[in-house]
Amino acid sequence: MHRLDAIAVAIGARLEGRVDLAIAGAAEPADAGPDDLALAADPRYAAGLARGRARAALLWEGADWRALGLEAALLVARPRYALAALSQRLDPGPALAPGIHPAAVVDPTAAIGADAAIGPFAVIGAGVVLGPGARIGPHVTVGEGARIGAGALLHAGVRIGARVVIGARFIAQPNAVVGGDGFSFVTPEPSRVEEVRATLADRGGGGVAQHWARIHSLGAVRIGDDVELGALSAIDRGTIRDTAVGDGTKIDNLVQIGHNCVIGRDCMVCGHVGISGSVTIGDRVVLGGKVGVGDHVFIGDDVVAGGGTRIRTNVPKGRVILGDPAVKIETQLAINKALRRLPRLMASLARGNKDVSKDDDSG
Amino acid sequence: MHRLDAIAVAIGARLEGRVDLAIAGAAEPADAGPDDLALAADPRYAAGLARGRARAALLWEGADWRALGLEAALLVARPRYALAALSQRLDPGPALAPGIHPAAVVDPTAAIGADAAIGPFAVIGAGVVLGPGARIGPHVTVGEGARIGAGALLHAGVRIGARVVIGARFIAQPNAVVGGDGFSFVTPEPSRVEEVRATLADRGGGGVAQHWARIHSLGAVRIGDDVELGALSAIDRGTIRDTAVGDGTKIDNLVQIGHNCVIGRDCMVCGHVGISGSVTIGDRVVLGGKVGVGDHVFIGDDVVAGGGTRIRTNVPKGRVILGDPAVKIETQLAINKALRRLPRLMASLARGNKDVSKDDDSG
Amino acid sequence: MHRLDAIAVAIGARLEGRVDLAIAGAAEPADAGPDDLALAADPRYAAGLARGRARAALLWEGADWRALGLEAALLVARPRYALAALSQRLDPGPALAPGIHPAAVVDPTAAIGADAAIGPFAVIGAGVVLGPGARIGPHVTVGEGARIGAGALLHAGVRIGARVVIGARFIAQPNAVVGGDGFSFVTPEPSRVEEVRATLADRGGGGVAQHWARIHSLGAVRIGDDVELGALSAIDRGTIRDTAVGDGTKIDNLVQIGHNCVIGRDCMVCGHVGISGSVTIGDRVVLGGKVGVGDHVFIGDDVVAGGGTRIRTNVPKGRVILGDPAVKIETQLAINKALRRLPRLMASLARGNKDVSKDDDSG
Repeated sequence: MHRLDAIAVAIGARLEGRVDLAIAGAAEPADAGPDDLALAADPRYAAGLARGRARAALLWEGADWRALGLEAALLVARPRYALAALSQRLDPGPALAPGIHPAAVVDPTAAIGADAAIGPFAVIGAGVVLGPGARIGPHVTVGEGARIGAGALLHAGVRIGARVVIGARFIAQPNAVVGGDGFSFVTPEPSRVEEVRATLADRGGGGVAQHWARIHSLGAVRIGDDVELGALSAIDRGTIRDTAVGDGTKIDNLVQIGHNCVIGRDCMVCGHVGISGSVTIGDRVVLGGKVGVGDHVFIGDDVVAGGGTRIRTNVPKGRVILGDPAVKIETQLAINKALRRLPRLMASLARGNKDVSKDDDSG
Repeated sequence: MHRLDAIAVAIGARLEGRVDLAIAGAAEPADAGPDDLALAADPRYAAGLARGRARAALLWEGADWRALGLEAALLVARPRYALAALSQRLDPGPALAPGIHPAAVVDPTAAIGADAAIGPFAVIGAGVVLGPGARIGPHVTVGEGARIGAGALLHAGVRIGARVVIGARFIAQPNAVVGGDGFSFVTPEPSRVEEVRATLADRGGGGVAQHWARIHSLGAVRIGDDVELGALSAIDRGTIRDTAVGDGTKIDNLVQIGHNCVIGRDCMVCGHVGISGSVTIGDRVVLGGKVGVGDHVFIGDDVVAGGGTRIRTNVPKGRVILGDPAVKIETQLAINKALRRLPRLMASLARGNKDVSKDDDSG
Repeated sequence: MHRLDAIAVAIGARLEGRVDLAIAGAAEPADAGPDDLALAADPRYAAGLARGRARAALLWEGADWRALGLEAALLVARPRYALAALSQRLDPGPALAPGIHPAAVVDPTAAIGADAAIGPFAVIGAGVVLGPGARIGPHVTVGEGARIGAGALLHAGVRIGARVVIGARFIAQPNAVVGGDGFSFVTPEPSRVEEVRATLADRGGGGVAQHWARIHSLGAVRIGDDVELGALSAIDRGTIRDTAVGDGTKIDNLVQIGHNCVIGRDCMVCGHVGISGSVTIGDRVVLGGKVGVGDHVFIGDDVVAGGGTRIRTNVPKGRVILGDPAVKIETQLAINKALRRLPRLMASLARGNKDVSKDDDSG
């Protein structure tokens, strides 16, 4: 049980009503039982509070908690931000016993920090350095020479490649992969795809055998502090230098970050984003779900790309973009609006202009 | 060997010819040997039957099996449906010895159902409940307090998070993840992306440090009966309430289902679909490959979205949609047709209208 | 340390200057220390060489290495190709001790080739055949009856399903999955999605319960020689026949290849590509990042599809395509150009033509 007065201090809220109330957990207003703290971030949740049985709630600033039938209230200006601290306090965390599980394989040359926990069937390679308080889940592999900072949490099945360096408080969700080889191949003669990319046109060709020779990844991956990596996401190692991710950047599930990329600080990279090789991304960049970024592209600080945007060329800092190819969001919204009218326009023009009325099947 | 008369009963087919024939397996018509049942769902396969050596075949209703050179035939109105029962009968299933492998780590407080099988290096947490006949492959982790129903089959490397609840006959392909943390972060002050989303425009800003505070996922995941989850797919836990997937829903590979989503019954979610947080989806919804769904969207029952559709706003029930942004399929097909003609229209107008002839580089 | 004269032979370069110099590794020009070979593929890197401390470099043909302050140079016509051989020589490779780790579970009926290495917690099923020199990383599972060729390298957490057959020198990055079940379901009566696909239109319907019956995958996967598979990528088994991937094909991370697909030789399949079931792809095909391919599509030899292309219909050999739906790249670039002008055109026409000025919200 958590007393409300302690929670109020922890989350920076103003407590009104019964300071001695204690809660067992948190719940949505309509689902809340008498021991739950109801989470009601704005007045839309008032009806839910009436249906639930909460005695206390986290409420928007200015809420009349007595009128809502509550005995106590935590009032904050930005309830969603307060939820961060509250949820941290209530999260039981994964059940990982301290120490090294007897079924783990830890190389004798690995340096394991104080209070680290290593789960069953984890494999820790030679020369690995694990910071104090790091928690390594079951089935995790950490390759030779990798360094992982203090307080890291690697969930089950995470793979950390050899010589990868990761800062403090890193969190990786299950089955994420850091340090797979980059996808880098080369043909003895310039390949057809090199020609297509150079000309953005089809100059014919093809039919010639071209075997892909592998370029091995000699670089590793370097990740700052406070980074999170989603389930089943991959960050490839660099070819020569390291692929790099800056402090505070958060990466969602099923994301691909290619070899040699340099990602800045405090970025947010949503699900299924694919970043090709050698991309440079500034600080505080937000890439919505399924954004694709072509190789060697530069994206400036504070760029925001809406979901599904395809970034094929450099983007100056601060721009808000959408579409394929990416344009300013206002431009894309205008294009979308025009597209909905386009069939009618075509029909209208066809009546007056025989020239454009025939279907062009050249593509 | 399987006798044809037994198979006919199992799959609901009419058997003609030699009832005593037995088959060892199934094959495509041209590849079939004398012990194979050839699968020839429609008359296009007649030529293949002539090339192969099958003595028996599963045929379309009305086929003249004697003329096709066969000794016996299983005739059904809908061969593809019959294939479901037939393939179930012929599938040897994974080789998982009954009982608990000595190299598994099973918490003594876990309740393991009768006839369950647990493979090598599986890790079963405290308080887990496994239903009767559940089969847990090698390297699977089941977190503390999770419950998995009767007859479930978890292939190698599947991760089930703590407190996840799953119904009967669940099948998860290798390395799938249920119950990773939701991707939910918040800044102390409203972030730039919140402003962009509110205005759908670029109001400037940026350049201000914004650290993402983590909102922990206190909810879990709740999955109904007869659900399947593809290889390398992820279903995130909810923030407060559980993420939910209804009975009979089938999910392909590399799919992402975000925190707090509620997915209905008998849906089909194809490969690389990405569903953001807090999405509500009705029953019998079909999402084609690479469909993306924005957060907090509502999708009604029986919606069908073609491959690559990007669903940014609510979709009423029964609609068939396509495109980015999603529109009715007929509308998108008309837009696609108009787009192919658009360059010619522009050129034509440019000759008559100097106003629109210049390239607009504003985007 | 590697002597330059030996490297010159290995990578087919002309060595000038001090033949007796030795290097410890490779580095980008500006980062290079005195024991590094600087990699300077073209004159743009000259400034970097001046900043770094390299004494030797891999240079473009014709470079004046003395003027660049170097003591020795390896000169090649195509430095990027030389990098393949160079990086192979310098790559230390994964630390996998030869032999079978005592914590692996290897079925006694498995045939393990000479000099194979099997890491901790690997699980090798009954009847598996591993070629000579195969290296199986930690936590890998190889299902019963699978065959893997000589010199294969399976990184941590790779899953190989039962009866899968793979050629020589296969490389699979961490957590990749070969041989998950195909995503194949059928309803007793024709489903709504079958109707939509047949008509490409919305004929109503819906609201009728439709349960998906599973079609089991009786086929396996068959992979040629010299294939690579990226981290977290999946190749599903076939329904009846095997899914097939030809020699020399390279597959990036987070790729999905559906059941029954037949992929040719020397293809390149980039990140997040999704290939639906029963697709046939020729030789030397290049699919850029996030390309999607509809089911039963045929793609001819030497096709190149730009990133994000959505291939819904057959593509003749040699074509270079882009867009959704895929058209010739020149057509798509013309469409993109026209789209940027479209809003202005609409506004212009609206002033003169009231007919097309109203927003059409039918979609």
